[in-house]
Amino acid sequence: MVPHLVTALNGPINELEQRVLDSMPAIERWFRLEWMEHTPPFYTSVDIRNAGFKLAPVDANLYPDGWHNLTAAMLPLAVQAAMAAIEKICPEARNLLIIPENHAVNTFYLSNVAQLRRIFHMAGLNVRIGSINPEIKKVTVIDLPNGDSVKLEPVIRSKRRLGVKDFDPCTILLNNDLSAGVPGILEDLHEQYLLPPLHAGWPTRRKSRHFQSYEEVSKRFGKLIGVDPWLINPMFNRCGEVDLSKPAGRDTLATHVDAVLAKVRRKYKEYGINEKPFVVIKADNSNSGLGIRTVRDMKELEAIPPQAWQAVVQSASRNTSFEVIVQEGVLTNERINDAVAEPVVYLMDRYVVGGFYRMHAGRGMDENLNAPGSQYIPLAFAESTHLPQLGMPPGASAPNRFYMYGVIGRLAMLAASYELEATDPDAETYD
Amino acid sequence: MVPHLVTALNGPINELEQRVLDSMPAIERWFRLEWMEHTPPFYTSVDIRNAGFKLAPVDANLYPDGWHNLTAAMLPLAVQAAMAAIEKICPEARNLLIIPENHAVNTFYLSNVAQLRRIFHMAGLNVRIGSINPEIKKVTVIDLPNGDSVKLEPVIRSKRRLGVKDFDPCTILLNNDLSAGVPGILEDLHEQYLLPPLHAGWPTRRKSRHFQSYEEVSKRFGKLIGVDPWLINPMFNRCGEVDLSKPAGRDTLATHVDAVLAKVRRKYKEYGINEKPFVVIKADNSNSGLGIRTVRDMKELEAIPPQAWQAVVQSASRNTSFEVIVQEGVLTNERINDAVAEPVVYLMDRYVVGGFYRMHAGRGMDENLNAPGSQYIPLAFAESTHLPQLGMPPGASAPNRFYMYGVIGRLAMLAASYELEATDPDAETYD
Repeated sequence: MVPHLVTALNGPINELEQRVLDSMPAIERWFRLEWMEHTPPFYTSVDIRNAGFKLAPVDANLYPDGWHNLTAAMLPLAVQAAMAAIEKICPEARNLLIIPENHAVNTFYLSNVAQLRRIFHMAGLNVRIGSINPEIKKVTVIDLPNGDSVKLEPVIRSKRRLGVKDFDPCTILLNNDLSAGVPGILEDLHEQYLLPPLHAGWPTRRKSRHFQSYEEVSKRFGKLIGVDPWLINPMFNRCGEVDLSKPAGRDTLATHVDAVLAKVRRKYKEYGINEKPFVVIKADNSNSGLGIRTVRDMKELEAIPPQAWQAVVQSASRNTSFEVIVQEGVLTNERINDAVAEPVVYLMDRYVVGGFYRMHAGRGMDENLNAPGSQYIPLAFAESTHLPQLGMPPGASAPNRFYMYGVIGRLAMLAASYELEATDPDAETYD
Repeated sequence: MVPHLVTALNGPINELEQRVLDSMPAIERWFRLEWMEHTPPFYTSVDIRNAGFKLAPVDANLYPDGWHNLTAAMLPLAVQAAMAAIEKICPEARNLLIIPENHAVNTFYLSNVAQLRRIFHMAGLNVRIGSINPEIKKVTVIDLPNGDSVKLEPVIRSKRRLGVKDFDPCTILLNNDLSAGVPGILEDLHEQYLLPPLHAGWPTRRKSRHFQSYEEVSKRFGKLIGVDPWLINPMFNRCGEVDLSKPAGRDTLATHVDAVLAKVRRKYKEYGINEKPFVVIKADNSNSGLGIRTVRDMKELEAIPPQAWQAVVQSASRNTSFEVIVQEGVLTNERINDAVAEPVVYLMDRYVVGGFYRMHAGRGMDENLNAPGSQYIPLAFAESTHLPQLGMPPGASAPNRFYMYGVIGRLAMLAASYELEATDPDAETYD
């Protein structure tokens, strides 16, 4: 089950949604059994796009920010889930150190950090915020727009442990996706729980690895509820490392774009979908939204001047290698006040704890919304307590569309769990 | 952590409350460690009385009803906790059968059953309601005031399993406190999970056993946060089986009433409390509120005519034996619209999921409120997201009084867990 939240899409429930709603007990049982075998990531947010005819996750963030965009009413759910997570990982925990991103002056981001501090404090931990930003040399208090404040303390590293002054945490929560590389100060901390593990950061992570796991998950899930996995799975090709400043690199990319567009076209034909297929070109090893390009056909790709690719490489990648994936684009059919919107689902441990809409007035339904100018609209809890009930006459109660978003969010989280198992450098192998 | 709910008492936070709030991380850690050693009851509700100077549980119900009095906003918390409980007990569960009380025509009670059905359906189970009432011979649909309905199906017992027509549950949830005895139809069900276990029912349960466990819990908790356990513990004497229709029985009772009143008087003197002590005479082996008598002094006890005791025995006890405890009375200082109110805390698995006030316009602050004419006022989630935060200036945020109620509720639940371990007929003993 997921919180009963109001969604922006009011149209009739389509076949996929109906199938998901009808299969609820089977789906929940399937997740319970999966979580017996696999460990969920500590926390996750998943960007979802609902095209009406298909619904898919387009990104799974393992160091989610934006927690402050959840409503106060969702806070108790997040806290209860945090309690469950702590109890499982480290019941004797007393002290938690949060390591935020280094962009210390961004009060939007720091509002997220304040919300995480609140959640874990309410879950019963002493919480401090330790900055690994070399510019934070002393305790720095930053006031937030809502009247709250965040105290950043410089971390102190001993041979075996990380902490801040007069505070020795047993658990360290990373809210930093390590895009700049794994700092030495976080390595070799074998006495403390470091969550999520370092190999969930971008130096190790690859989107292609995640979506490969997701494809596996979606096939099994599709079999469970009897639907074509494509209806929940965005197809993709992994291009590997390409040098887009050279014609050879751009040729490799064009081959993959053409191949994915052809696959999407076939699927649209199979389902009689009259939309224009498109693909999204993304950095494989970075979460930056800046490098994302939407391409509708080969002409559009060819029209991009080489200098533009140079800029993409520079903005998306902080080192010289640029690994690329080409992913099937998923339209979003959701609108809030005429602006295109996509739901973002928040998960703590195995539980869906809330969500909101990311919307962008200046972007189209086939464009990336995670870009400067985007806004965040919290989802409200649905007022009605009339939920689908077995034994109730059909149509007597409105089913909850958000349930499906929570299912897709959990499928992406499960894929991330497979992904982290596959990339774990300390995993035991049984050959 | 417990949901951040609004309470009726607006007075200044007293020393006990401040101590509880200040000790939050230590308290949460203590509970986490306790739940590693002990299994919480499946679900629990706890009646609490807040006298200002002391705060104590006066009843812990292991087959709680009244779930429909929780607000819709609390439902997701209950569902998330139910998911955690199911996952722990029986992750492969598909089908759940709820066994309600037999008073089938009470739509208040059946609204509670409908709410339980909703919670477990949203947690991902197929839920049916199986009646063990011999009068329910065929499927009976009862409409509820809110437009919902409840379908009661007669249970079908095979040699080893219990179900309803075309429905074989793996888990059976009792919402029936077995006051009338354990029906044979519920015995020897070794293939199905029966929750809570039969020995949580009144044929086995004794309030004195519960409060003995609670005394133990409150001593350890008092040591943890550095307070006199009496501030959270209602003292009591167990009278055992007494025949109140005979002078000898009434003499035994009088001795215990006198002894408990004397103990309370000493404590009031120690703390300089100018209230009049009182005791509450309760059936030890029944949850019926009808048999409860409040007594302020020996004269009041002596003035009760023998026929009145006869009526008490008849209303409280469905068999001939009448076991009695005499418990220290705890005043309630809470008022809603001038009516005396007491908070009731709801727990699912180890989590506080909500609460409400039981109020009674016709009763005094030293009387039992669980009586005909009582009303139920749901607690609202507090709007403010400003919670006590480490590092925030003192007084900058209002602490949450409901947190303390949740702590006391969980202490009573922990005592019930000890109690069920002690009374488990299948427990292995290591002599």
